[in-house]
Amino acid sequence: MTKNTKVNAAILIIGNEILSGRTQDTNTSSIALWLNSIGVTVNEVRVIPDIEGTIIDTVNYLRKANDYVFTTGGIGPTHDDITAQSISRAFKLEYEIHKDAFKILEAYYEDGEFNEARQKMVWMPRNANLILNPTSGAPGFNIENVFCLPGVPSILKSMLGGLKNKIVGGNPILSHTISLRTVESEIAKSLTDVQDNNKDLEIGSYPFFQAGKLGVSIVIRSEDQSKIDKCSKEIFDFIDEKKIKIVDR
Amino acid sequence: MTKNTKVNAAILIIGNEILSGRTQDTNTSSIALWLNSIGVTVNEVRVIPDIEGTIIDTVNYLRKANDYVFTTGGIGPTHDDITAQSISRAFKLEYEIHKDAFKILEAYYEDGEFNEARQKMVWMPRNANLILNPTSGAPGFNIENVFCLPGVPSILKSMLGGLKNKIVGGNPILSHTISLRTVESEIAKSLTDVQDNNKDLEIGSYPFFQAGKLGVSIVIRSEDQSKIDKCSKEIFDFIDEKKIKIVDR
Repeated sequence: MTKNTKVNAAILIIGNEILSGRTQDTNTSSIALWLNSIGVTVNEVRVIPDIEGTIIDTVNYLRKANDYVFTTGGIGPTHDDITAQSISRAFKLEYEIHKDAFKILEAYYEDGEFNEARQKMVWMPRNANLILNPTSGAPGFNIENVFCLPGVPSILKSMLGGLKNKIVGGNPILSHTISLRTVESEIAKSLTDVQDNNKDLEIGSYPFFQAGKLGVSIVIRSEDQSKIDKCSKEIFDFIDEKKIKIVDR
Repeated sequence: MTKNTKVNAAILIIGNEILSGRTQDTNTSSIALWLNSIGVTVNEVRVIPDIEGTIIDTVNYLRKANDYVFTTGGIGPTHDDITAQSISRAFKLEYEIHKDAFKILEAYYEDGEFNEARQKMVWMPRNANLILNPTSGAPGFNIENVFCLPGVPSILKSMLGGLKNKIVGGNPILSHTISLRTVESEIAKSLTDVQDNNKDLEIGSYPFFQAGKLGVSIVIRSEDQSKIDKCSKEIFDFIDEKKIKIVDR
């Protein structure tokens, strides 16, 4: 099912390790690509530290300003994992043992392995909906329009598929990329004209270095393939005229 | 010169290509590692689209809430590069040709190459301070506590060194990482005790997969090496007792 209204989301990365620069965030890209494919535009991303007050304030702002919010990080078994507790406070819900999550982890671990630390991972806001984790057992959770996912990229990716039925997107956001052996300044004026002729399309220009050579990728984004095709044709017209080479990328 | 007050910064990534997931941001990590080394803590990161109103509002919020703001992206020659113009409006400054920037690019390019598109890159807020670009000529700029850098990672990195004298940091933020062949749940309780004994240190616990094996990196961060040493000792005590193996990472 598709609809014509715009659906948007914010991504909230919770974790000191990203702010310190020690760890490179890759979850934004994973979540954003997946959201685009189901017709949800990411309006903004924020990265914040593992501080309860900051998590509460930011979640409460973002969930009102966006159709959906996706958080990553802070749902493991250690002392610095405070997302579930902070989300409970943000929604003024009890922070308590989630019985279904308890059953899942009790079954997942061998006898004696479901220790006190692991039991921390079944504490959630009251009546949270579980987000199943096919990789490492411990589920994420969802309250209203906020979806809480783990920080480990491979685990997070494995959980996105299971969310599809919980998110109602708009039309998928389509994109077409044309990569050229040129520099931005050579095409800037023509590209501005194309943008002026196609005001409702998003046209981005991104320089790159590849195998020691400069190039530019032009990215056209829209929900409407026919508009992308029309815009591409206008771009092909000026690159033909300027004898600019198209490159694979 | 070091001082004891905390100095903090926000990073503002401007660019639709990050929000769409097409491009993985790596500038946050480059800037954050460099800031930490000169004693500046990153409080938050935001990623926003190339929309003038959003850039203006976000810059005006962040520059009041932080000692420094670093923006990346949107200072090239194409129609979607609107950072300089938006920053001018945020500060209510004229957006005009910067004479020194003009001279730099006039000298940088061969005769006839400094075309209209490239001349767009010398339009800046009035009286902006230039941030020199040893890689590709076009400078970034700084107004009050806001520093505007390009989005291309290699160019951005080459410009950070030149900023050192413009930023007054606190004591460098030191960190020590201890990587272990274990899982978080095995050490969670002991680590909580260590954190409780060392309340003014930031202790993070980060699971990893390496060569098919699970592990956990414990990261201790502080401005005070002696506190890090004391805390490390307490961690070594419990890993000795639990016979957990230390691994290189």
